Amino acid sequence: MPTPKLHFSRAEFDARIAKTRQQMQQRGIDLLIVSDPSNMNWLTGYDGWSFYVHQCVILPLEGEPFWFGRGQDANGALRTCFMQPENIIGYPDHYVQSTERHPMDYLSAQLSDRKLDKGIIGVEMDNYWFSAAAYRALQSHLPNASFQDATALVNWQRAVKSEAELTLMRQAGKVVGRMHERIVEKVEVGMRKCDLVADIYDAALRYDPAIGAGGDYPALVPLLPSGADASAPHLTWDDQQMKSGEGTFFEIAGVVKRYHCPLSRTVFLGKPTQTFIDAEKAVLEGMDAGLEMARAGNTCEDVALAFFKVLKKYGITKDNRTGYPIGVSYPPDWGERTMSLRPGDKTVLQENMTFHFMTGLWMEDWGFEITESIRIGTDGPECLADVPRKMVVKD
Amino acid sequence: MPTPKLHFSRAEFDARIAKTRQQMQQRGIDLLIVSDPSNMNWLTGYDGWSFYVHQCVILPLEGEPFWFGRGQDANGALRTCFMQPENIIGYPDHYVQSTERHPMDYLSAQLSDRKLDKGIIGVEMDNYWFSAAAYRALQSHLPNASFQDATALVNWQRAVKSEAELTLMRQAGKVVGRMHERIVEKVEVGMRKCDLVADIYDAALRYDPAIGAGGDYPALVPLLPSGADASAPHLTWDDQQMKSGEGTFFEIAGVVKRYHCPLSRTVFLGKPTQTFIDAEKAVLEGMDAGLEMARAGNTCEDVALAFFKVLKKYGITKDNRTGYPIGVSYPPDWGERTMSLRPGDKTVLQENMTFHFMTGLWMEDWGFEITESIRIGTDGPECLADVPRKMVVKD
Repeated sequence: MPTPKLHFSRAEFDARIAKTRQQMQQRGIDLLIVSDPSNMNWLTGYDGWSFYVHQCVILPLEGEPFWFGRGQDANGALRTCFMQPENIIGYPDHYVQSTERHPMDYLSAQLSDRKLDKGIIGVEMDNYWFSAAAYRALQSHLPNASFQDATALVNWQRAVKSEAELTLMRQAGKVVGRMHERIVEKVEVGMRKCDLVADIYDAALRYDPAIGAGGDYPALVPLLPSGADASAPHLTWDDQQMKSGEGTFFEIAGVVKRYHCPLSRTVFLGKPTQTFIDAEKAVLEGMDAGLEMARAGNTCEDVALAFFKVLKKYGITKDNRTGYPIGVSYPPDWGERTMSLRPGDKTVLQENMTFHFMTGLWMEDWGFEITESIRIGTDGPECLADVPRKMVVKD
Repeated sequence: MPTPKLHFSRAEFDARIAKTRQQMQQRGIDLLIVSDPSNMNWLTGYDGWSFYVHQCVILPLEGEPFWFGRGQDANGALRTCFMQPENIIGYPDHYVQSTERHPMDYLSAQLSDRKLDKGIIGVEMDNYWFSAAAYRALQSHLPNASFQDATALVNWQRAVKSEAELTLMRQAGKVVGRMHERIVEKVEVGMRKCDLVADIYDAALRYDPAIGAGGDYPALVPLLPSGADASAPHLTWDDQQMKSGEGTFFEIAGVVKRYHCPLSRTVFLGKPTQTFIDAEKAVLEGMDAGLEMARAGNTCEDVALAFFKVLKKYGITKDNRTGYPIGVSYPPDWGERTMSLRPGDKTVLQENMTFHFMTGLWMEDWGFEITESIRIGTDGPECLADVPRKMVVKD
């Protein structure tokens, strides 16, 4: 049997599981079906690009969790999860993308065999990887169970980071710093977007002895829309040339062992317009005000309101949230999908929570992003990366 | 208003929609909710990394489809979809990852306003992007509608490729050829995996005048497990060094404007073991037998059985499918999730269907992949890439 490569101590996994079970008990959940790959990784170490087929981690209130997935991916689970081989369950390949049978049919039988088919089962109802069909299959095959929505139950346990996690996120912060340095060095009028993305990946991935790690893939590909296209926050690149007189934001993340440090900067090629100069001033001042509030004991809303107040002073309305928690992640999103930095979110900030303070502006015909990833401290935030906080202007 | 950048003629989009509506009518579906980003792109042109929030294309039996998504992403829809601005519907940001309201609540109200809240609504029940919670929200807010499972309804319409699509896939074939050339050039003992991945991305992305395109992001990141890890088909890279005496498969794709050409090759560093020499012989002979059957009029099963028959002769059992259709795609999967090249799949092959003939072997302590992406012709297949079909051995 292969020895699994774990990035955290067994004690840390035990603590994560204990925390999760405590929450399950509070909610009366007997068994948790965890479909989110980030949650699967955090609970067991499981790592692999296999989430395009049905898979999950099953967490009972006692004993080891077990991994459930496609037979051929069980080999990956043996190599990345801490559990004993008997707790790695693969389903036969004819369940994959079949119109006649569903992997959750097979899981139901496995749960019955283990007498885990009763009581209250928590499922991640609003997760990408728990489809309506998966839910229907479980409901029809587990008549003795009832289901409770456990969306984000595990995600919430991930909010406060351990020292070992913070070490990886600080490494990721160095990686994203290197990526932004590369952009400043390479970007110029006439350069094709796709070529610049090749440079960004190069800086994101190569092993750096000064960091002690190579880069991992980001949960979102680099976003770098220019000019009026930057009003659309999620356009990806094309193979067209960069133009003079346009602003481009770069929303990218450094990633080490699936831990993310996102960070955005804006580059203006040529002489910046007054709009960009004003946006920079407003965002930087607003960010300072927000960072001032980003400390243990304050709330998510406090950070957002401080930022929005400054924007308002400058006549800018931002009608979307201004940040979200970050950490271990898989596509399609590097956010943790729990709290948000937005008015109305009264979640109290705790030490070692980590956020992407997403102060981006996407206006009718331009966009501007200067952001920071931060760790909440007792006296204020720690910026996880060290990248000059300003608009880059290149003639 | 921005002029959308479309990669296909309006006539082609009209034909796609007509085909899809014909299928809807056959099944008695009045309205189709399309959550799969690949299907959204194919029907309307929509392109953006916004699938981490709820979004969809709504296709009634008459009139333009409409795009539904997050308010800030409507700017992206205006730039990439052919529809009129009034058919681009954004929902307010406080619906994003809220525990109190669901974007499908908002969609339901929009459908009611348009009197589309009755009859039979098709939904993609087993799609990553249609969660159990999304379904529950629609059910509770649309009491006058009934729902039908329309998983893969649009995917099936995508199976036969147009000439314009094939042009992009052949470009993607040239890109993946360039990627494999780069691997052969760069790979060596002592090289770190992450550095090799940087080289692979470089070859995948940079604009090439000889191809006439730059590269787009793949729906799966490069997979390149070595040695015993190659028994696990979906492990991603780390920052460790390549070793002598190990085989590594490279499962990668060239991508142009979201159209994929996947292709795998295996590299052995040092003197190949008899296992690898035997695997190469079996796979190449089996692949020839499978390709011989890959022509219009034969079935998916015919290709698989021809391949498996040769493997069996060599004492190799492959217990998973040996291919799937390919084309336009978004993470997490570059397969189309309709037919499979496997025993029992009697789907008749048609001219201009395209497949990844996935002849990979993932055994207990090794893995081997030499694959081809093919277009089904009337007299036999066209290989979409031109990469030497052999194991690469580097000392």
